[in-house]
Amino acid sequence: MIVVMQKGVTVEQLQSVMKRLQDFGFKAHVSEGVERTIIGAIGEKTDEKVQQLEMMQGVERIVPILQPYKMAAMEFCGQRSLVKVGKVVFGGAHVPVIAGPCAVESPEQLCQTAAEVAAAGASMLRGGAYKPRTSPYAFQGMEKEGLELLAEARQQTGLPFVTEVVNPGDVDLVGRYADMFQIGARNMQNYALLRAVGLSNHPVLLKRGLSATINEWLMAAEYIMSSGNEAVVLCERGIRTYETETRNTLDLSAVAVIHRLSHLPVVVDPSHGTGKWRYVPPMCQAAVAAGADGLMVEVHVRPEEALSDGPQSLRPATFAEMMSKLAPIASAVGRTMP
Amino acid sequence: MIVVMQKGVTVEQLQSVMKRLQDFGFKAHVSEGVERTIIGAIGEKTDEKVQQLEMMQGVERIVPILQPYKMAAMEFCGQRSLVKVGKVVFGGAHVPVIAGPCAVESPEQLCQTAAEVAAAGASMLRGGAYKPRTSPYAFQGMEKEGLELLAEARQQTGLPFVTEVVNPGDVDLVGRYADMFQIGARNMQNYALLRAVGLSNHPVLLKRGLSATINEWLMAAEYIMSSGNEAVVLCERGIRTYETETRNTLDLSAVAVIHRLSHLPVVVDPSHGTGKWRYVPPMCQAAVAAGADGLMVEVHVRPEEALSDGPQSLRPATFAEMMSKLAPIASAVGRTMP
Amino acid sequence: MIVVMQKGVTVEQLQSVMKRLQDFGFKAHVSEGVERTIIGAIGEKTDEKVQQLEMMQGVERIVPILQPYKMAAMEFCGQRSLVKVGKVVFGGAHVPVIAGPCAVESPEQLCQTAAEVAAAGASMLRGGAYKPRTSPYAFQGMEKEGLELLAEARQQTGLPFVTEVVNPGDVDLVGRYADMFQIGARNMQNYALLRAVGLSNHPVLLKRGLSATINEWLMAAEYIMSSGNEAVVLCERGIRTYETETRNTLDLSAVAVIHRLSHLPVVVDPSHGTGKWRYVPPMCQAAVAAGADGLMVEVHVRPEEALSDGPQSLRPATFAEMMSKLAPIASAVGRTMP
Amino acid sequence: MIVVMQKGVTVEQLQSVMKRLQDFGFKAHVSEGVERTIIGAIGEKTDEKVQQLEMMQGVERIVPILQPYKMAAMEFCGQRSLVKVGKVVFGGAHVPVIAGPCAVESPEQLCQTAAEVAAAGASMLRGGAYKPRTSPYAFQGMEKEGLELLAEARQQTGLPFVTEVVNPGDVDLVGRYADMFQIGARNMQNYALLRAVGLSNHPVLLKRGLSATINEWLMAAEYIMSSGNEAVVLCERGIRTYETETRNTLDLSAVAVIHRLSHLPVVVDPSHGTGKWRYVPPMCQAAVAAGADGLMVEVHVRPEEALSDGPQSLRPATFAEMMSKLAPIASAVGRTMP
Repeated sequence: MIVVMQKGVTVEQLQSVMKRLQDFGFKAHVSEGVERTIIGAIGEKTDEKVQQLEMMQGVERIVPILQPYKMAAMEFCGQRSLVKVGKVVFGGAHVPVIAGPCAVESPEQLCQTAAEVAAAGASMLRGGAYKPRTSPYAFQGMEKEGLELLAEARQQTGLPFVTEVVNPGDVDLVGRYADMFQIGARNMQNYALLRAVGLSNHPVLLKRGLSATINEWLMAAEYIMSSGNEAVVLCERGIRTYETETRNTLDLSAVAVIHRLSHLPVVVDPSHGTGKWRYVPPMCQAAVAAGADGLMVEVHVRPEEALSDGPQSLRPATFAEMMSKLAPIASAVGRTMP
Repeated sequence: MIVVMQKGVTVEQLQSVMKRLQDFGFKAHVSEGVERTIIGAIGEKTDEKVQQLEMMQGVERIVPILQPYKMAAMEFCGQRSLVKVGKVVFGGAHVPVIAGPCAVESPEQLCQTAAEVAAAGASMLRGGAYKPRTSPYAFQGMEKEGLELLAEARQQTGLPFVTEVVNPGDVDLVGRYADMFQIGARNMQNYALLRAVGLSNHPVLLKRGLSATINEWLMAAEYIMSSGNEAVVLCERGIRTYETETRNTLDLSAVAVIHRLSHLPVVVDPSHGTGKWRYVPPMCQAAVAAGADGLMVEVHVRPEEALSDGPQSLRPATFAEMMSKLAPIASAVGRTMP
Repeated sequence: MIVVMQKGVTVEQLQSVMKRLQDFGFKAHVSEGVERTIIGAIGEKTDEKVQQLEMMQGVERIVPILQPYKMAAMEFCGQRSLVKVGKVVFGGAHVPVIAGPCAVESPEQLCQTAAEVAAAGASMLRGGAYKPRTSPYAFQGMEKEGLELLAEARQQTGLPFVTEVVNPGDVDLVGRYADMFQIGARNMQNYALLRAVGLSNHPVLLKRGLSATINEWLMAAEYIMSSGNEAVVLCERGIRTYETETRNTLDLSAVAVIHRLSHLPVVVDPSHGTGKWRYVPPMCQAAVAAGADGLMVEVHVRPEEALSDGPQSLRPATFAEMMSKLAPIASAVGRTMP
Repeated sequence: MIVVMQKGVTVEQLQSVMKRLQDFGFKAHVSEGVERTIIGAIGEKTDEKVQQLEMMQGVERIVPILQPYKMAAMEFCGQRSLVKVGKVVFGGAHVPVIAGPCAVESPEQLCQTAAEVAAAGASMLRGGAYKPRTSPYAFQGMEKEGLELLAEARQQTGLPFVTEVVNPGDVDLVGRYADMFQIGARNMQNYALLRAVGLSNHPVLLKRGLSATINEWLMAAEYIMSSGNEAVVLCERGIRTYETETRNTLDLSAVAVIHRLSHLPVVVDPSHGTGKWRYVPPMCQAAVAAGADGLMVEVHVRPEEALSDGPQSLRPATFAEMMSKLAPIASAVGRTMP
């Protein structure tokens, strides 16, 4: 890291900072410029050390050089990781599609939808049994009964499923049913929950927080990985901006950035990213072309009766039509789709 | 609410929407314009109904008229609420100041800081025993030991304390020590946690999420209140914007907006709002002038040795100097401070 | 539009608003709900009328129903428009690529780059002669000499060119050389400039402002069109968000939104959108897959010597390699590329 | 600045960067860490040099140490500057208030408003003769006639006036009437306009762009100052965020930040900052308490008939009432107000 000293720093202040750096185990070198003196410091940096140095007399600011995540960094592996959920693989040449309703609402709704998405080529099923809703008066999910229905739909279709867990106390229960945990956007920095899934053996789909930087998102992955669970798949689902024509702004460049900074697979969820079903097919096309390692799409047999997120759900026929267009795009970027 | 129909809507589509509105119990009226037909619908609106209507053939969009929160709305009370924490009252003429370190680090650090802030006129103590940190490698708090130290500091100074709870499973334990729960910004939409503190008897300090709208913030308060706990104090602590000179952008206009929309008291935390101690005194002055019902300020006896948030912590002397300037400002806006 | 009245509105206030609506030529209908009275008003809305109504006693707020742009709206045409620049057509099945350096720097730099991008399949040349730079001390462009070099490069390659105009007083001069005007992001709401190019006969490439909503962007197009010039091509080039890994956040969903709201063609500029050359090829692929009507890419023969925006410029070889991958993606979405 | 090299940089790449640094006149020092090699470089940095270095083989990124503005920096003066507009002084102990209508609409409207604000203690008059409006169909201002009315109002009240200039070609004409130029938020990066007012002898009120960083805002001031005109007053008027309860988010911490980084005075405009008149008085109070060097407030004798921005305009009586509350706040922070 670089310690930038204030203009007019005194010799005593400089010596005091150099001493502290040595105490912290850094190798330090002073460069004196016309306007500023800076210190290059090499060593094991921690948040505590940085903040304590930043508060010393004569210090203007600290400029970090290295990224704060380790296990999530590309350099940790040197190559893209594969994350497996049953037979489904994220991070390889094949681009899996996760599809299903926002919320599990009834046996009919789930089974019909599951059958439709399986027929159209989806690799995995999604469905919420525990729903984090902005309003306490909105439908909050079928909970345990929803998990049982998801297990039944898996039985019928052969598709493994991912479902959201919202409470550290539910991790065991949800884990008895689910093939993959989902950490929702609102819980991306719910560290108690991240540690709880980090202690499990299930792969985790980690959604990007509504206003999380890519750096913070990778730090959230680091929480899970440093707790012992390296099977993390990232999911870009749109970030909050001032634009109101779409529910969020889908940040597709995050796919390219993640592929540079991290070895973890990254999938894209255009349903939440745009919030309007009309925009889902073009954004799925764009996501595949950008190199996404998977898609996550909301599908509902009767969106006009959905208890949650109907406006962003595709009807099965629209989903199937979209799926048929994706294979040639995948092929154009060296990937495969059904 | 208003249902805006698409250009070229058919008579059948219109009738179908009118029928659905009736089934939902709405009283509806059609207005036909040159370019658009709209339907005014009066009745009990829910998220499900809105989304289902939005998906019907011929519907362009739904425009809600009423705000979605009820118990948090000004109209629920008709006047400002008072929230009491021991002898401390939020929402009245007096403006209490909550002060203390970001994290509890040691008996000496906490007790010295507590004694200093009490002497300078603080009404309540703050201190984190459970710290949600961006990095899994950073100091995570002293947990139960921290709670005990806080209780000891309360004993010595007579100041009640607020401390953050991050896991629904910890609510009982933390509640045995704390006078007030803090829900941190990262957990503002952790609904499992909101319900857990909503079932307790302790007042709750609810921080605004990093990218939460004022509407979403009030909906988070609604979660707590609708679970049975109406003693909620809101806390503005800066929102995420593109600006990087400050850690967040402190939205002081939120104080005026909350005072119009809600009966709940709102306090301001300029330490997190700006992230730099130099900017804390002017922003505290501004917060009081804007009508804030309280302040929350980070103070540390030796910020250069703090394990968390040192750069935004005031030294006791700076805190005391700032406190001495606030009373005349409070007086100018019809409030009192020590 | 809908006029939402305050709770407890009086009969006199309501009558007074109804009278004003009639004076303004609106047909109005009152709906009385349990909590609120609302008025549906049909007629010719202007900003003045809306704001004046909003200030009347008893009015809580006005909810607009129709979008404020007319000539830029899809409904104005009913189908996608074609905008022609010489033989190049934007908005048709073919997807043209505009390529070239950020700034014109020298005859060699421009001519070599022009020859390279022409050989790789670009349809148009870009290059700045007038450069709006954040710093007054940075290179500001070759101005008239730059225009002459662009004309010469057009002569040699046969490619028409687009170049930025920054001052209403320069529109005539730039128009004598350029095939298409570019309005830069910083000038999207420079209305004097929009009117000046609106009075010209040249097609205009209108970049989205750094923090412009899609609605404001279409209103900027409306300025040009309502001045008499309907040949407008929109250009998405990234919006400002809190994310810092990319220079801006490229909003590819804007392509789908524009295609729904407007008949105007929309091209995508991933060079400014991401700010880093590594991310340009995947984002070009994504833009084509999302349905973009064109691409705009910065190419420089020696980016490490560029006087402007080197880090986001592709080398000619990288550009050529990228071009070769775009045709199959275009084909998959029913478009053509060279 | 610091040049951070990529992991695995070769000796040749390092030497090549060191050579380029020397050619650019930098004094450079290499620090080799376990994971990264960094180079500290001292010397005259320009945008071109930085970008060219950033493109060299083996370079990961450049970290700038010094801010890019010079004349606008606090270090340029070492103390706060005073900017005078006739007898009105910005930056001293007295806090002037600029008040008046958004747009000049008629002789009666302007003269009445001017008389009212003068009586209530305003030091300067504001009023737009050239209005940049989002819609081409909205009232665009009375132009030259508006300037004449402003001059007449100055005659009657003795108040100097500030008015916006939107076109470099109008600077001479507007300058013949106005005491101070206003550069509006939409034109903050209209460099042709900044240079034009930089060549004039009139003080300039420079509004912060809607999504401008503080750094970019100071760079815009630098454009004016480096053109020869050092009489710049900055104006915070709210930035664009995702929040919709207010028109913009007023960034009051910008006052404290500017006071640290720059010697220029900074005034606050809560009318545009909040967009709703109800929030203007508390935000004016907060601005004064935060240390603002002036206020800018929209006042209209009949807001419900205003042709522009009525909803954010105060009635004269509300303005007068607010003014009476500001003096004790100013006094509490060591300033004076009428």
